Amino acid sequence: MLTRIDHVGIACHDLERAIAFYESTFGLDVVSREESTEQGVREAMLRVADAPAGASYVQLLEPLGPDTPVGRFLARRGEGVHHVGYGVADITAALAEIGASGVRLIDARPRHGSMGASIAFLHPADVGGVLTELVQSAGPD
Amino acid sequence: MLTRIDHVGIACHDLERAIAFYESTFGLDVVSREESTEQGVREAMLRVADAPAGASYVQLLEPLGPDTPVGRFLARRGEGVHHVGYGVADITAALAEIGASGVRLIDARPRHGSMGASIAFLHPADVGGVLTELVQSAGPD
Repeated sequence: MLTRIDHVGIACHDLERAIAFYESTFGLDVVSREESTEQGVREAMLRVADAPAGASYVQLLEPLGPDTPVGRFLARRGEGVHHVGYGVADITAALAEIGASGVRLIDARPRHGSMGASIAFLHPADVGGVLTELVQSAGPD
Repeated sequence: MLTRIDHVGIACHDLERAIAFYESTFGLDVVSREESTEQGVREAMLRVADAPAGASYVQLLEPLGPDTPVGRFLARRGEGVHHVGYGVADITAALAEIGASGVRLIDARPRHGSMGASIAFLHPADVGGVLTELVQSAGPD
């Protein structure tokens, strides 16, 4: 069902500083920047690898305020890995299958994610403490 | 410098239960199991994707006891993402470059990791709260 590790989502206090660090230390390049008031986050996608099944990214996330999901995460746990996103070929089919297995879906239906993808989150309490995201890329997958 | 997301390392209380979950819910397969008394961990690698640059895995980690790195992590933070591993083509060169940039190296020299790889960890305090591992696979990379 999973086609790749699409991205690792990392919460940070200062997006520009985090981008500069990943660029200079690891040689990654920013391929997309977005701001979502709906999700309360400003973000950048840095490409790690490009593969036939789709690319993999480091996703850096800065909250737009303290009363947002990433803002609350930072207050509780500090900077670090916020979630893991896996590629799927058909997110609607994947959600149906995963939901039927008993995992609670944060998003029962896909919504818009970074770079035109369709995304949905699974409840971390049902995935061994990992906030898990499914990603169906906008491009071929 | 980074060639791919090699793996996401996930700390769990019960390895067999975590394996069964990832197999049944996400259709992943275990490709390797190892136990390291040196690292105080019992682990399984589940392949997510196979790509020319190298495969990507979910790495499930159960501590061999409470007084181990993963045991202390579980006591402090509970189950969840423990670290992120990135592929590199030449780990010795990568460590030299990253060390020169000011990031503290937990492993100044590569050591043996899962599946015959050479690995080294970077200090999370210098990588935005993310315990970061470099992985030079045993096979072509």
